[in-house]
Amino acid sequence: MSFHGVFPYLVSSLDRTGVVREDVMEALVERLISAGVHGLVPLGSTGEFAYLDAAQRLAVVKSVIRAAKGRVPVIAGVASTSTADAVAQTRAMVAAGADGILAILEAYFPIPDDGVEAYFTAVAEAAQGLPVVLYTNPNFQRSDLSLPVIDRLSWIENIRYIKDASSNTGRLLSILERTEGRLGVFAASAHIPACVMMIGGVGWMAGPACIVPERSLELYEAARAGDWPRAMALQRPLWRINELFARYSLAACIKAALDLQGFEVGDPIAPQKPLPPAARAEIAAALRLIGAL
Amino acid sequence: MSFHGVFPYLVSSLDRTGVVREDVMEALVERLISAGVHGLVPLGSTGEFAYLDAAQRLAVVKSVIRAAKGRVPVIAGVASTSTADAVAQTRAMVAAGADGILAILEAYFPIPDDGVEAYFTAVAEAAQGLPVVLYTNPNFQRSDLSLPVIDRLSWIENIRYIKDASSNTGRLLSILERTEGRLGVFAASAHIPACVMMIGGVGWMAGPACIVPERSLELYEAARAGDWPRAMALQRPLWRINELFARYSLAACIKAALDLQGFEVGDPIAPQKPLPPAARAEIAAALRLIGAL
Amino acid sequence: MSFHGVFPYLVSSLDRTGVVREDVMEALVERLISAGVHGLVPLGSTGEFAYLDAAQRLAVVKSVIRAAKGRVPVIAGVASTSTADAVAQTRAMVAAGADGILAILEAYFPIPDDGVEAYFTAVAEAAQGLPVVLYTNPNFQRSDLSLPVIDRLSWIENIRYIKDASSNTGRLLSILERTEGRLGVFAASAHIPACVMMIGGVGWMAGPACIVPERSLELYEAARAGDWPRAMALQRPLWRINELFARYSLAACIKAALDLQGFEVGDPIAPQKPLPPAARAEIAAALRLIGAL
Amino acid sequence: MSFHGVFPYLVSSLDRTGVVREDVMEALVERLISAGVHGLVPLGSTGEFAYLDAAQRLAVVKSVIRAAKGRVPVIAGVASTSTADAVAQTRAMVAAGADGILAILEAYFPIPDDGVEAYFTAVAEAAQGLPVVLYTNPNFQRSDLSLPVIDRLSWIENIRYIKDASSNTGRLLSILERTEGRLGVFAASAHIPACVMMIGGVGWMAGPACIVPERSLELYEAARAGDWPRAMALQRPLWRINELFARYSLAACIKAALDLQGFEVGDPIAPQKPLPPAARAEIAAALRLIGAL
Repeated sequence: MSFHGVFPYLVSSLDRTGVVREDVMEALVERLISAGVHGLVPLGSTGEFAYLDAAQRLAVVKSVIRAAKGRVPVIAGVASTSTADAVAQTRAMVAAGADGILAILEAYFPIPDDGVEAYFTAVAEAAQGLPVVLYTNPNFQRSDLSLPVIDRLSWIENIRYIKDASSNTGRLLSILERTEGRLGVFAASAHIPACVMMIGGVGWMAGPACIVPERSLELYEAARAGDWPRAMALQRPLWRINELFARYSLAACIKAALDLQGFEVGDPIAPQKPLPPAARAEIAAALRLIGAL
Repeated sequence: MSFHGVFPYLVSSLDRTGVVREDVMEALVERLISAGVHGLVPLGSTGEFAYLDAAQRLAVVKSVIRAAKGRVPVIAGVASTSTADAVAQTRAMVAAGADGILAILEAYFPIPDDGVEAYFTAVAEAAQGLPVVLYTNPNFQRSDLSLPVIDRLSWIENIRYIKDASSNTGRLLSILERTEGRLGVFAASAHIPACVMMIGGVGWMAGPACIVPERSLELYEAARAGDWPRAMALQRPLWRINELFARYSLAACIKAALDLQGFEVGDPIAPQKPLPPAARAEIAAALRLIGAL
Repeated sequence: MSFHGVFPYLVSSLDRTGVVREDVMEALVERLISAGVHGLVPLGSTGEFAYLDAAQRLAVVKSVIRAAKGRVPVIAGVASTSTADAVAQTRAMVAAGADGILAILEAYFPIPDDGVEAYFTAVAEAAQGLPVVLYTNPNFQRSDLSLPVIDRLSWIENIRYIKDASSNTGRLLSILERTEGRLGVFAASAHIPACVMMIGGVGWMAGPACIVPERSLELYEAARAGDWPRAMALQRPLWRINELFARYSLAACIKAALDLQGFEVGDPIAPQKPLPPAARAEIAAALRLIGAL
Repeated sequence: MSFHGVFPYLVSSLDRTGVVREDVMEALVERLISAGVHGLVPLGSTGEFAYLDAAQRLAVVKSVIRAAKGRVPVIAGVASTSTADAVAQTRAMVAAGADGILAILEAYFPIPDDGVEAYFTAVAEAAQGLPVVLYTNPNFQRSDLSLPVIDRLSWIENIRYIKDASSNTGRLLSILERTEGRLGVFAASAHIPACVMMIGGVGWMAGPACIVPERSLELYEAARAGDWPRAMALQRPLWRINELFARYSLAACIKAALDLQGFEVGDPIAPQKPLPPAARAEIAAALRLIGAL
């Protein structure tokens, strides 16, 4: 299986007691698949993986797999500080029917390169042949994947993609040049997707695609067709949405926008705070401007 | 109950399958209580809380409480990104018989001051009257406690202590001046304990005290008695031990030192790496120099 | 006058007593103009402005203006912590015949937004109608230009360009969207020039263009013509040169590469160190690979 | 000559045209010497060295030397990115009659340890036997002195002191332990002077001592006499002044406080801004509270 295109990072909708709201997850999945997204990623940063326990994480992924009914691949996030725990999570996601693993290393103490490599290698092995997407986000995570480690990991057969949320697009070109086709590169919200597509990327994984899937797909198709003037014309208004989301807390923004669109996804998990009314109004106005509300 | 004195941050000893080694924990607790420490703190940074799941954390604390047999207070670490999870952990620690809670806020997305305050307030309430020690470590954690938040939290009856691992001793004096007796201040490894005692601190909570408890206690007694020349004479060789531990990864160092002293505490949890042989030899030499081996 | 295209950041060649080597500067200018560059920028980061006194800075700019003989515009760097000093530098550069000013704010204490705005406004006024290029480099400078300040400055008539060396290409798109044609955006070494051109940039100002001017120009022409596949084909090998230069100290790298190409530009200014032999050999090999040696 | 005690960091008072106000400098020097300070330091951070050109710097130092009339030692700040310039500054200060050099390395590009060592070694040689104080301030300067470099420099005969403004008091103890008497350690505003004295420091160099010299001296005498309870009683109210100054821009604060005390030192150098009225009122209130207004 080859992953490419627009993969929204899903929010995790829980009720007040912490139980996954299956109905809301299903409605959101249905809406995104109808819009034509190429895949779904529960438990990215937007999915608040860092705020969920093991049972909640698995329940979120299962609800997405169930709702997707095999129509698009579901790539499940796995994140831990501990190798053993990451392996256990990976096995549970494989058993639940995930089509791929988005692998994240959390850190408390600094981890040297050989420890980082060992961690991702163990996750890849536990994935039993499923494709693994390396995910690095130096803004929120306390570890980073160096170029030499990425290069070494790219030789493992089922480590096939990387999503880098560093905002440093040049780093993506360095990864592409260094791994020479062994890794597909996905953009994140902090990169301009049109640019990442032009330098050789395969798509993007990002929270805002939950809100504006049709427009994200138009942009992807234009870029895929090499129609760069059209891609940039579509990119510009989408970038303003991204900028807006970057100004406030990520999960709070995406959840507020989805709520405005009629999905009762609830508030971000405490002690995160819901968006204040003014910010919510600003997002509503921006969504209206591009026809997403 | 009033906490003051030397409170070692205990390591967490697990076997290869992740099960707590009760015998090792018991031996370590026995040795520290015999040396005269004033209390014990499982699940600080040194205790690798960030690498343990909920069941392992509880098992570590229970093993310490069992071994301590009420001879000294046991302050259990509670750490989470999520308020609900922190409250659940706190309740479990109270039910297990802890004498106090060391409260830590982990963060993924940045949390504004009112969210930080709400988190610690919820933990304090869940502690059901047990004393709470605020713990902030800007080096490893992704959140920090601002002075205004510390001030507001100091008015909650059972929030009675703070341990700040920022290396900025002036900040401790600012906290003392601002909270005017409402918070007792514990030093961390990054501060010079003799200095913190002189500005009005009540003791220290730190990993290295596991290795050199007698000398830590001598220093504490000298400081407590106001014999500052003697305190500094005792402080200087202890500082060299601290410096050595700061050069390498914390849990790996303390575990290696304890292993050298005959406690089979095992390796740090993967993907952390055990100390390389040269560093282990350097630690052995330093311990011998101060008679701790 | 409108600036666009490839503007190499020139090195500053001094003899052992600190006197500008006019012959070397002239030879370098001649070589770059022959290659077809669109302009020249003495006293950028590569030009080691931060290591030169006022007299040396002026002498470097004068030598470039003299050698350029009006064939291409010369944009002179102006950098200071103090508004009065920046104004004096700007006047001297205008009097010397510069065609534009590259304006840099150095900082020691943090400067609030209104101070930053006042500084650049004063430089623009002192430039007496000459075009001003705002330059911000958060890696080496201790101040940064916020988007609101850039927006406000963009309304000043002769502030017409910006060069941002942040490595965050999304920030460039935000600037373009926000200033709506009032500012032309130049890429820096840390951005991928082909990407910056695609999102609407007007060219790039960078040290490596001193070494590989013909290939830089080919890339610029392909991008200008909208031939993005060709632009990317030319971009890839150039990016490897950039990566190599990013690995070592900037001025040391560019000076070593120019020395290998036969320009006796000398060593970087002490206490900077010349490149070690192994790094020099690595650069020689890379230059050979792309036919630049 | 041996330096110890309270050495205020003087402000630099200039008129609107940038000329040093000799009368103001003289009045300030007179007031501080009357109060009993042990020495004077023009051109520290508080002295805005980073905002003055070579001629202004020399004029400031000459005005202080003239006013001091040999009654206390004058230690002149020397700061540059370039070794040659630092050597020239040092020679000028020696020729002007300075009693010691406060040596600062500014940086633009990162400088490796051997470059840092070469810079300070060259300054020490240019000081022709006068005592040199190493000064490192990681908050504002873009270089830092590592412990190994400090150790190596401590073996140079006339490098005899260090002032570290890192806020990390433990680092001072590490320096003391490592240099074994070869370097005297001065505290900075970010350290608690009483703590630094207790661990073996020789005094402090700081801007706030300009405002509260008598109280600073009382604290010094208490510490020197080993009367730590009294030292802490004096330290506490002084720390509140320090905290207040840390909240606002340093030079703006000290200049505002001196202006309130009747010294017409003027505003901080643009683009720095003078304190807003509310902050000025807050400082006035704090000074009144401790009898310094």
